[in-house]
Amino acid sequence: MTRAAVLGTGAWGTTFAAVLADAGTEVTLWGRDEATATQIVSERRNQRFLPDLDLPEGIAATTDVAAALDGADIVAVALPAQILRSVVADWSGLVPAGAVVTSLMKGIEIGTHARMSEVLAEVWSIPDERMTVVSGPNLAREIAARQPTATVVAGADQGAAEMVAAASASSYFRPYTNTDVVGVELCGAFKNVIAVAVGVADGLGFGHNTTATVITRGLAEITRLGHALGAQPDTFSGLAGMGDLIATCASPLSRNHTLGAHVGRGLSLDDAIQRTGGTAEGVKTSQSIQELARAHGVDVPICDAVVAMLHDGAPIQDVLNALVSRPRKAEGV
Amino acid sequence: MTRAAVLGTGAWGTTFAAVLADAGTEVTLWGRDEATATQIVSERRNQRFLPDLDLPEGIAATTDVAAALDGADIVAVALPAQILRSVVADWSGLVPAGAVVTSLMKGIEIGTHARMSEVLAEVWSIPDERMTVVSGPNLAREIAARQPTATVVAGADQGAAEMVAAASASSYFRPYTNTDVVGVELCGAFKNVIAVAVGVADGLGFGHNTTATVITRGLAEITRLGHALGAQPDTFSGLAGMGDLIATCASPLSRNHTLGAHVGRGLSLDDAIQRTGGTAEGVKTSQSIQELARAHGVDVPICDAVVAMLHDGAPIQDVLNALVSRPRKAEGV
Repeated sequence: MTRAAVLGTGAWGTTFAAVLADAGTEVTLWGRDEATATQIVSERRNQRFLPDLDLPEGIAATTDVAAALDGADIVAVALPAQILRSVVADWSGLVPAGAVVTSLMKGIEIGTHARMSEVLAEVWSIPDERMTVVSGPNLAREIAARQPTATVVAGADQGAAEMVAAASASSYFRPYTNTDVVGVELCGAFKNVIAVAVGVADGLGFGHNTTATVITRGLAEITRLGHALGAQPDTFSGLAGMGDLIATCASPLSRNHTLGAHVGRGLSLDDAIQRTGGTAEGVKTSQSIQELARAHGVDVPICDAVVAMLHDGAPIQDVLNALVSRPRKAEGV
Repeated sequence: MTRAAVLGTGAWGTTFAAVLADAGTEVTLWGRDEATATQIVSERRNQRFLPDLDLPEGIAATTDVAAALDGADIVAVALPAQILRSVVADWSGLVPAGAVVTSLMKGIEIGTHARMSEVLAEVWSIPDERMTVVSGPNLAREIAARQPTATVVAGADQGAAEMVAAASASSYFRPYTNTDVVGVELCGAFKNVIAVAVGVADGLGFGHNTTATVITRGLAEITRLGHALGAQPDTFSGLAGMGDLIATCASPLSRNHTLGAHVGRGLSLDDAIQRTGGTAEGVKTSQSIQELARAHGVDVPICDAVVAMLHDGAPIQDVLNALVSRPRKAEGV
């Protein structure tokens, strides 16, 4: 039987542990908080992040990371993007030799512009052939409620991707494999920034025509940057690209969308973060994507607008109007 | 000053007349119903299709089609797709020589598989260089409320497309031009079928992960058929493709989405049509797209599922489950 460790007891880490358990994989969740670990084991609940949902039998949970990692064939990581490096730095010796590592995270590290799988690979010295990422239209709460969804497992090594796919596949969770790690990971990170922009537009009272336009232009922007980074074009029109972007932008369950909507209704960033609860990765990712785009000379106007609204104190209505009314003549220019 | 005739006093015909009027174009609406024409002129309302919205000053309306067409530089047509041919057949001699004709319609004629611009061109003997189409993320009610939106005006002749763009551009309505008439028109028709499928999924209680997957796979299906018909790939990722698809699938204002949701909740097609009110073009377009796809040997599983559910009495839950759980290994296959 495959053994997996999942690091992080947030909504997505807990949900992915449940997915693995339902797929017949032996799984241990690690989290820092003793009460959460106890609740997961004894009540089969994670009331803070997945209120009122029953978790499957057979998920172990611990606050001892060495115990969680011991004997793991798969190490899945779901920690906040900007603290990942510092949290996992000391665990390098605990990751079993030969284990496949999979990033469940969606972000780009500020300063280094590193994707989450790059941070893990660097800190833990994981070679490309043992590194994978999971990304797709995967709102955690819907999956935890066992609603059917598809996802993408990407890995430079097809065999590693297939191992993670096999360990997580069930009647309601269907993983497709893909070898475009760069594209899949970029989509996962960047879509949170677009979701903030869509949330702002919603909060300001714009309708579906406007949000559909922002989403469409947003995917064009993600695709442009992906092209510069050497990603595969098909990734962007697939489940990890367009699929995840639409799910995230459509859903009131998305923290990035929710945060944007609060900002659009006039809250300050701090108040919006407070009200949203949990980590809205798009807030910081907007800055790291902007850095990355500038380093590659790629134009990312929606990302720039999000940075201006969230971090530079630019008047929201002005920024969004400028974005919506950019002069253009022919499509695609 | 440019003069325009708009044929059809439904939601989109009326709204496009308002767009033209706001852009400074002299516009006359034609409709069959005397009371509607009178209400538009005297109360600046179309209460049946755009309840509680004020129309701009300066829209003339008539039930006399010869009067509406007299001296028109632009003839815009917004009539139900499947009756278009029979309604406009006798008006060939009334369309001014040299007028640019623009289709606002989104459908494919059953039997002939003709796009709406092809029907108009054939019946009125309009050469390609005077034929245009308008399509994009354009929910009529939002535009009638003057919410900002973008759209695509496509024409084989760039000058004709630019004429329609100039006649309709305003602070809230931004037309981009494009020469891919086939692609733009196919997107407009097909997205109504995908919107029905998304509505069914919503009605059955599926969440955003599932609907995002259906939308993503739907665009892939539209793109495949477009490729077979010689359309340009970029059209599908643009405003008339992805943009319109997302707006239509997201909105409770879309009749196709609404109809699908009624069917998903267990209503018969007849009852669902009754409850939806107005024409949900996707109902019949599903059949003509299926015919068109078969004629070109293109696989369109979502369209097939919609035909099976709406017209062949197939059990809805079975059809949708089969669609969601189609076996696949690698993305894009």
